[in-house]
Amino acid sequence: MLRRAIDLFNRKGYEGTSVADLAAELGFSKSAIYHHVPSKEHLLAQALDEALDELTAVVRDALDDGGGSVADGRAYARLRSVVRRSAVVLAAHQPAVTLLLRVRGNSAVEKEALARRRWIDAQLAQLVRAAAAEGAIRDDLPPELVSRLIFGMVNSLVEWFRPDGEMTAAAVADAITAIAFDGLDRPARG
Amino acid sequence: MLRRAIDLFNRKGYEGTSVADLAAELGFSKSAIYHHVPSKEHLLAQALDEALDELTAVVRDALDDGGGSVADGRAYARLRSVVRRSAVVLAAHQPAVTLLLRVRGNSAVEKEALARRRWIDAQLAQLVRAAAAEGAIRDDLPPELVSRLIFGMVNSLVEWFRPDGEMTAAAVADAITAIAFDGLDRPARG
Repeated sequence: MLRRAIDLFNRKGYEGTSVADLAAELGFSKSAIYHHVPSKEHLLAQALDEALDELTAVVRDALDDGGGSVADGRAYARLRSVVRRSAVVLAAHQPAVTLLLRVRGNSAVEKEALARRRWIDAQLAQLVRAAAAEGAIRDDLPPELVSRLIFGMVNSLVEWFRPDGEMTAAAVADAITAIAFDGLDRPARG
Repeated sequence: MLRRAIDLFNRKGYEGTSVADLAAELGFSKSAIYHHVPSKEHLLAQALDEALDELTAVVRDALDDGGGSVADGRAYARLRSVVRRSAVVLAAHQPAVTLLLRVRGNSAVEKEALARRRWIDAQLAQLVRAAAAEGAIRDDLPPELVSRLIFGMVNSLVEWFRPDGEMTAAAVADAITAIAFDGLDRPARG
């Protein structure tokens, strides 16, 4: 039921989907829907939690790796791992992440989701800052900007990635990691 | 009027915006709106054309540079220029591009816009292929994937770029170009 609700929200927009639409999609009566879930917003909260729990776990693992400090000289490996693993999460939870990326803060549930996204973004920027500080990545660009652009590239895959398409999630995650850290230029040019 | 219609479409979603909403936003009566534009879809078409005309011009310039051929050994410079200039266009036409990126093909106007986007995407992938063929960029990743990811990073700036923010459009475009071609790694690592 959650799967089909998420797909409907993504097709019609969450605001544009009524409980009657949900009932029609699922072949239930409206009262049967209310028997299963207290509200449309409850389904939204479950969907956003699905995406946020996975992404939060990826970030927490990177922070915890080695004792929770980001100042032990291995920020680069953690950052690389977070980029790769978040791409894999996006591919595996694409419908829920698509919904998350469209949230604009129109309700308490959406505001809570935005707050969790901001926490994730802050950790990612911190990891970029630590990797620059240990001398592993370029330090000529603001860490917040680098973080936004790299994860903007990661997030963009929800627009076109298909689980049944030509490329596996692992191959796409490897490509994103390669471009983000090594760039497109052939090494000989640098 | 087009500016405010685009902002309203982006806030409420195009489907979720009625002509009555538009009239209320602009302080006009519904009949006054219809005096100025034949339909809501007419405004959408104008907005999408604004974004697509600019992006198409950037791509055409890259194709025409040097006589319309992409096989004269300078695909790399053209690709770099298209990445940089498309980021500048996105920053300068952010509301119209935001609307464009949300189009899903729900009408003839939207289908036409998607067809123009596909033409642009095909030219970009072709340029990536040419740059790889001339040995300037890595050739270990499919050109369509590279093109999607790089322009996914470019497109992501509509989510957060603010014309009155700390960074200029030129600085953001330079950062995107630097990351895309040179990557985050310090040259010494490579």
